[in-house]
Amino acid sequence: MRARAPASAANLGPGFDVLAVALDLYVEVEIEPAGRLTVRSEGEGADLEEDDMHLAARVAIEVAGHDGMAITVRSGIPVARGLGSSAALAVAAAAAAGSKDPLAVAARIDGHPENAAASVVGGLVAATSVRGAVRAVRMSLDGRLTFVAMVPDRALPTSKARQALPQHVARTDGIFNLGRMSLLLAGLADRSLLIKEATEDRLHQDYRSPMFPEAPQLLARLVSAGALASCWSGAGPTLLGICDGGDAERVRAGAEAALKDVGVPGRCMVLRPDLEGLIVEDGARSSRRGAPPLRSFDELDDGTQDGLR
Amino acid sequence: MRARAPASAANLGPGFDVLAVALDLYVEVEIEPAGRLTVRSEGEGADLEEDDMHLAARVAIEVAGHDGMAITVRSGIPVARGLGSSAALAVAAAAAAGSKDPLAVAARIDGHPENAAASVVGGLVAATSVRGAVRAVRMSLDGRLTFVAMVPDRALPTSKARQALPQHVARTDGIFNLGRMSLLLAGLADRSLLIKEATEDRLHQDYRSPMFPEAPQLLARLVSAGALASCWSGAGPTLLGICDGGDAERVRAGAEAALKDVGVPGRCMVLRPDLEGLIVEDGARSSRRGAPPLRSFDELDDGTQDGLR
Repeated sequence: MRARAPASAANLGPGFDVLAVALDLYVEVEIEPAGRLTVRSEGEGADLEEDDMHLAARVAIEVAGHDGMAITVRSGIPVARGLGSSAALAVAAAAAAGSKDPLAVAARIDGHPENAAASVVGGLVAATSVRGAVRAVRMSLDGRLTFVAMVPDRALPTSKARQALPQHVARTDGIFNLGRMSLLLAGLADRSLLIKEATEDRLHQDYRSPMFPEAPQLLARLVSAGALASCWSGAGPTLLGICDGGDAERVRAGAEAALKDVGVPGRCMVLRPDLEGLIVEDGARSSRRGAPPLRSFDELDDGTQDGLR
Repeated sequence: MRARAPASAANLGPGFDVLAVALDLYVEVEIEPAGRLTVRSEGEGADLEEDDMHLAARVAIEVAGHDGMAITVRSGIPVARGLGSSAALAVAAAAAAGSKDPLAVAARIDGHPENAAASVVGGLVAATSVRGAVRAVRMSLDGRLTFVAMVPDRALPTSKARQALPQHVARTDGIFNLGRMSLLLAGLADRSLLIKEATEDRLHQDYRSPMFPEAPQLLARLVSAGALASCWSGAGPTLLGICDGGDAERVRAGAEAALKDVGVPGRCMVLRPDLEGLIVEDGARSSRRGAPPLRSFDELDDGTQDGLR
């Protein structure tokens, strides 16, 4: 069985641990019965360990209940860059191993329900835990919007990035994020309302900056290059410009120049929202799971345990 | 000149200091030139002071730059109950006094941009301060939704309610509200997605409860009477059930029974969202300001000073 899941960018500034958008980089996992476990990896992440501790293997073994399988991972998603590679891999591996609820499995093992939800349903999602289960809703996303990703050549593992965050925040900062997230949701639903302040955040971005001191300058350069707004992608170090499709190539060129000027090695990519989410192929049949209509809000609900985040 | 503005319910649970919905109770302010200031008040709030300290007079004098006018206020909005009566009064008074930007004036003097924005544009709004100005966006609101207001016969001034709030909160509580507000916005846009957990909040409601110990029980009763979700209206003490239009009368009856059972005197009303916002009549002409189309998000922007909240 074969499954493909898209990358995702979480947080998007004020929507910390809640919002994520699926992007058109993909990981594909193929699983076939075999006498013993093998994991073969191609593309992004292929230089990482390929044993039974590989995330795809851990997920597939949990779903299948045994380890008699040959797993092939083909990934186009940069690893440990804040593009949801592990959530996408977990979703695809769970689906390829036959799980009926890849979101629940991926959220439990990867720990990022918003990334996993975006990888399953595609588009823009909000995910949160309700009574011990992940509840995700699809939010409106203007088809004219495109993303430019600045991907530095340095890893910034999420766990390390998270340790930088304080346990308490000013109540006014919590309210600030509620206000900004409202502006962001309005702007992502209707591009003509998107203003650069909509991605401002007081809960995580500033705390992450010491680990990536060039980030504020690079975020500003994305906007001066023509992006409507800019933000960290997940826990970074990838930075995103949110722009009009027609401006994307210009923003990408500006982002490349900015990385060069600031002296941060890396690559810049134009990424479009993925609207299909997870695609599973069982032999000749191809089924699309969890890809609801786009015109309105949609939901999915699973049985993931609480306390993961 | 005569102006009418609707009541509003702010916060709606997780959208603390950001969200508000306009409701179909109204205050009307009529202003005519006169040798000296007079303020006449009818309806709700008529028993309050009627001198130049009256909010309508303060607003009108600031807009007009003089006090030579006769002001008549006719209000159907209960005062100091969390239904945005002062924001609506300030909006209507500013408009009746000739202000071109009643939102800016009302937000500056009343201090609640989200209530003022709902009173100006109607429907569901999110408002926040961006670079010293109020920025408000209209959010999608499902036409099938109706509100049941439980209005206790006791005042709970906003300033007193606000003093009960802590200055710092757990970061996880801020994230909790971001997640719940996403679910709430999805559910208000599409009633079939509205679940009772969408109005859960960790930033203000629990801290207000000591001033209104019956509130948690009454909120639960609204849901058991058939509301999809329930929350405080603004700073209270009014409590709201959000329900399907067809269930509203049943929920109202259940709410009345609950007030009686719990021993809290008060009244229960079925309120529909107001979608027109501020209406200004200049002699024979009637103009409608700030009432944008409903199908999508819309914005208004003004020049209100920052730091009001």
